[in-house]
Amino acid sequence: MNIALITIGNELLAGFTVNTNAAWIGNHVIQTGGNIYWHQTIGDSKEEIHDSLNQIPKDINSVIITGGLGPTHDDVTAHALYEYANDTPVFDEEYWLYLQDKLAKRNLKLPEINRNQAMKPEKGTIIPNPIGSARGLHFHVDGRDLFILPGVPREMKAMMESTVLPWIADQSAGGLTVRTIRTTGIMESGLAEKIGNIVDALADEIKIAFLPQFTGVDIRVSSADKDAVNQTVNEINLHAEKYIYGHDHDQLEEIVGQLLNANNLSLSTAESCTGGLVGHRLTNVSGSSDYYLGGIISYSNSVKENNLGVAIETLNKHGAVSYETAIEMAENVRSKLDSDLGLAITGIAGPSGGTDEKPVGLTYVALADGKDTIVKEFRFLIDRILNKNASCQAALNMLRLYLHNE
Amino acid sequence: MNIALITIGNELLAGFTVNTNAAWIGNHVIQTGGNIYWHQTIGDSKEEIHDSLNQIPKDINSVIITGGLGPTHDDVTAHALYEYANDTPVFDEEYWLYLQDKLAKRNLKLPEINRNQAMKPEKGTIIPNPIGSARGLHFHVDGRDLFILPGVPREMKAMMESTVLPWIADQSAGGLTVRTIRTTGIMESGLAEKIGNIVDALADEIKIAFLPQFTGVDIRVSSADKDAVNQTVNEINLHAEKYIYGHDHDQLEEIVGQLLNANNLSLSTAESCTGGLVGHRLTNVSGSSDYYLGGIISYSNSVKENNLGVAIETLNKHGAVSYETAIEMAENVRSKLDSDLGLAITGIAGPSGGTDEKPVGLTYVALADGKDTIVKEFRFLIDRILNKNASCQAALNMLRLYLHNE
Repeated sequence: MNIALITIGNELLAGFTVNTNAAWIGNHVIQTGGNIYWHQTIGDSKEEIHDSLNQIPKDINSVIITGGLGPTHDDVTAHALYEYANDTPVFDEEYWLYLQDKLAKRNLKLPEINRNQAMKPEKGTIIPNPIGSARGLHFHVDGRDLFILPGVPREMKAMMESTVLPWIADQSAGGLTVRTIRTTGIMESGLAEKIGNIVDALADEIKIAFLPQFTGVDIRVSSADKDAVNQTVNEINLHAEKYIYGHDHDQLEEIVGQLLNANNLSLSTAESCTGGLVGHRLTNVSGSSDYYLGGIISYSNSVKENNLGVAIETLNKHGAVSYETAIEMAENVRSKLDSDLGLAITGIAGPSGGTDEKPVGLTYVALADGKDTIVKEFRFLIDRILNKNASCQAALNMLRLYLHNE
Repeated sequence: MNIALITIGNELLAGFTVNTNAAWIGNHVIQTGGNIYWHQTIGDSKEEIHDSLNQIPKDINSVIITGGLGPTHDDVTAHALYEYANDTPVFDEEYWLYLQDKLAKRNLKLPEINRNQAMKPEKGTIIPNPIGSARGLHFHVDGRDLFILPGVPREMKAMMESTVLPWIADQSAGGLTVRTIRTTGIMESGLAEKIGNIVDALADEIKIAFLPQFTGVDIRVSSADKDAVNQTVNEINLHAEKYIYGHDHDQLEEIVGQLLNANNLSLSTAESCTGGLVGHRLTNVSGSSDYYLGGIISYSNSVKENNLGVAIETLNKHGAVSYETAIEMAENVRSKLDSDLGLAITGIAGPSGGTDEKPVGLTYVALADGKDTIVKEFRFLIDRILNKNASCQAALNMLRLYLHNE
């Protein structure tokens, strides 16, 4: 089923906001059996909204509209749609009291300006917002279904998932099957060589795409034929096993957490160049307190020495960014925090601090388990943020490979 | 001058690629004196391209079109545009030889499939590509200028900068001045009330937009009148001073870093619910080693007690998420890491772990300077990742306000 998408916002046209909503909607609609056929972005103006609605190709009977449902003065979407649908907004006393009550619980007062969020249509229906106060609208005009949602991404997503996507699934024969294989520790060209035979032998109906990022390469497999997709994924799994940490929406920190749980092992971290990023990612996972005890961010040498117990001789002789320091960091954080495993990262994130011998991007990752300590050198690139992300990913991947072999 | 934008690609509609090109173009056009008034995304199909060209609002005389100029089979943009412009592609022998020569220097042979990249129009003109082989096209049809560019972001940008933006600047009176005021610690509605008088009194030519995020609200002021923008920004600065941490591309962690440097103070962190996020953000700033020593991620109670020295009585009596624990965390990390300031965060990130008395989202932030310790309670919402981000922002903002008053 072909669907039109209208995203409303001067913000989007002026490029102040990247239209990630459109990508999210396109992606979820296609997996539900629909297809965004036509997409227009227009400004916050009643006339432009009406013009856009009139430009939708004739044979398209479902329209998703996002943006402009907030309480401030430039949000004209609701007005434009009420007028287009020839409907009347009426005050929803019940919802207004509910909103006031909700904010009262947080010791906040609901400003009068929010009153327009408590309006509801006479003929159309309300799309509930599971996580925010701006509700959506569903109108039926001239044989077309119009779904109007807020532009705030998390609210839009919650309402798509609770109302619009189920509606699309109901009307559709079956979606495209899209699966993603997530790899790290290998470049796109290396991966292409490894699975080249599989890709060359694929039927036309199965599409493959390589999506390289600095922290790894995703491989996307898609087709209307679900079995063929799963079979292709299985074949790729076999040929690139070592590099695959997960599938679809898996995050490396989730996979590592599952492996720690399965092995009943606890973890602590000692971070220098990543500055807390590894701990941050580990604790993004709900339930991470089951295995992650905490860590020491030893950003300065004084903390490395005085709080983490790295020997001053090691720091003086080999430097803070060295095999030797990484090993002591991993072993010491493990014993000081009394965990089964200790994971350490030290590197030169840049842009300054590099030398000919130890360039920006040089990173050491070490993992101590009380018996042995593994340590590995990496040479990343020159951008500070990318280096932090790549170092963090390499550390989590070292932990994954270790746990996988346990 | 109003400009239409057509971005072509099935990848965009399916949401496999986020349309960052549209944002980049919108942003650069607006600062050059143009304005993207209308934007459509369509699939790789000649019919859709023609339909889209026919839907462009009548009074728009400049059109930027991106995507579909590569050598592969689904790139139909050039064909569709030649037909629309009633022009004929002729083989550009000179350019073909130039391409062959260029690749020969890298010991590569130019595949025949690239021949279509050496075509040029009879009536239209070529837009040179400073960094790639796919050239752009410039047609003049029925009083309209059409600029056709590749979809590869870096090639598109290079050609916009070398050809299209200078053309727009030539035709325009002058660009828009855009300034952003960055606030945190106040909701959009509260901010709207505080600066309502300023907003209401503004001339029509000055536009104001509120851009709410969970970690703060940006206020964007824009106008062709640069002085009026700066004056408005100054007025808002005066009326909302306490909540404003910076302007334009300022990040809170950069501002805090500048204040720490200016006050010649060092910092350490003790993080529970944020799990290292505060350290991560602080160390995203190049030069942060001048003031940030490091921290302790005391995610488990054992680390709080044994490594950070929080009294077991405090943990038992008041709990890990309490005023008392936050205070001890801040004071102890300060003394243990020997820094001037100690910043601590403890909270219930969720989704589990909340009680009626201590709900998910409850967070305490404390800041110790050796004489006094400030501590503040926050009640955020239910989402784990948002809570971590909000807690981190609140902690950095507490530090900012403290340093501001020093």
